[in-house]
Amino acid sequence: MTDHDRKPRFQRSSGKSSRSGPPRGGNWRERNPHGDVVILYGWHTVTAALANPRRRIRKLLLTENAARRLAEEKIETRISPEIVRPQQIDHLLGPDAVHQGLLAEADALPTPSIETLPQDGIVLVLDQITDPHNVGAIMRSAAAFAVKAIVTTARHSPEATGVLAKSASGALELVPLVLVQNLARALTALNERGFLTVGLDSAGSENLAAVPLRQPLALVLGAEGKGLRQLTRETCNVMTRLDMPGDIKSLNVSNAAALSLYICASQLGLMP
Amino acid sequence: MTDHDRKPRFQRSSGKSSRSGPPRGGNWRERNPHGDVVILYGWHTVTAALANPRRRIRKLLLTENAARRLAEEKIETRISPEIVRPQQIDHLLGPDAVHQGLLAEADALPTPSIETLPQDGIVLVLDQITDPHNVGAIMRSAAAFAVKAIVTTARHSPEATGVLAKSASGALELVPLVLVQNLARALTALNERGFLTVGLDSAGSENLAAVPLRQPLALVLGAEGKGLRQLTRETCNVMTRLDMPGDIKSLNVSNAAALSLYICASQLGLMP
Repeated sequence: MTDHDRKPRFQRSSGKSSRSGPPRGGNWRERNPHGDVVILYGWHTVTAALANPRRRIRKLLLTENAARRLAEEKIETRISPEIVRPQQIDHLLGPDAVHQGLLAEADALPTPSIETLPQDGIVLVLDQITDPHNVGAIMRSAAAFAVKAIVTTARHSPEATGVLAKSASGALELVPLVLVQNLARALTALNERGFLTVGLDSAGSENLAAVPLRQPLALVLGAEGKGLRQLTRETCNVMTRLDMPGDIKSLNVSNAAALSLYICASQLGLMP
Repeated sequence: MTDHDRKPRFQRSSGKSSRSGPPRGGNWRERNPHGDVVILYGWHTVTAALANPRRRIRKLLLTENAARRLAEEKIETRISPEIVRPQQIDHLLGPDAVHQGLLAEADALPTPSIETLPQDGIVLVLDQITDPHNVGAIMRSAAAFAVKAIVTTARHSPEATGVLAKSASGALELVPLVLVQNLARALTALNERGFLTVGLDSAGSENLAAVPLRQPLALVLGAEGKGLRQLTRETCNVMTRLDMPGDIKSLNVSNAAALSLYICASQLGLMP
């Protein structure tokens, strides 16, 4: 089971492969190795950014159709868009990106510190989940379940741009991303601040659905295959697993995230 | 919200783009437009196929490392493998495929008919979900929740090969795939056979978690954005939605599938 994440998946179509290899080609995707400028594309992703006053938009490319749709839906563009042909955005993003005629170059959002996290609800902690599609889908689910923040390491995590932003479908604007240097230290800080830290791993000793939970809760997820690192495991208050009735015992990591968020939110009385 | 699926995503890395465009290049991915031979790669996918007596393996390429690992785990290869360098498999699959040194060419599995479905448990019905990563992850969750079968249309669905098979992580061997010409007719047949047909859509009138369910149950999911087609909707006994507490009201479709399977399996007493 140490195999799922051997090669960063979807590298070619992933917008940018950031820290995992040399950039390919010289197009827009590959710029900005330091993460201060991000690329946002797609309807939900760009309109959510336009609606977020904390997001500074530097440049906005729109197709005529997209500009018309924004006007129809009375969405302010905040800056003057550059009207382009769809192929120009294709050229910048690569042929696989579903951009829907919208591309923004924007500042990365500020990342708060552990100390500023509210002491209620749920935070999600990601331990070296590298696939940007999965992290994006997890951020989207986090926004759907009103998660207070996502804590992850600055290294071994995909940047909040490109494919991750697209998969997050606007959630980047809604869920604060806390970037830390050392995850075990961050978990210790959460423990000290009164969080119940619950790890999820196929080798967990308890069934998540049967563990008594309380707020504030930190739910800690690792990469498929690798699971949580030893030190992450040891720093969690309790290690849990998802019990399922079928012959396959592990889910895609974003599916496991959605399910465990549901289980936690239900037990904590956070569901509508 | 009609935008998520405008362009078949991940086309380049998706193993094969089957009906959605002309094949690119001439490598192994693009062969077999008729679906009778499938390409399986990756540890879980290939070992599950080797363990399935109903799966005829035509050809097996292994790296030395993969062959050693199979021998260590006492897994029979059934046919004589061809030992190759990893780059040879890279060349066949493209650079993005996480093949882990295993690639099999195999016959497609037989697809049963609606009439043969058992009249208990849950079946999953997919209405034009085109992304092979999502369908693969859904199949994996289906296997985890002991779903009896997946019903989908022969057209407008990705083939059970390549990226879909890899994302399914062995689930192709465990969950029968029922391919139908007309989904509304298939749902009518399920209704007539006593299934409760439950559609899931952001516009559903009922909260799935609050609807009384019974076996046999058919859970019907549509593509993100498009949702269920009108006729699919009208043929379902009840249309439901997932109520969530956050600002984003829809999940990635495979996440929605995992969550709704959990809700249904829990209510039906199918969880361990």
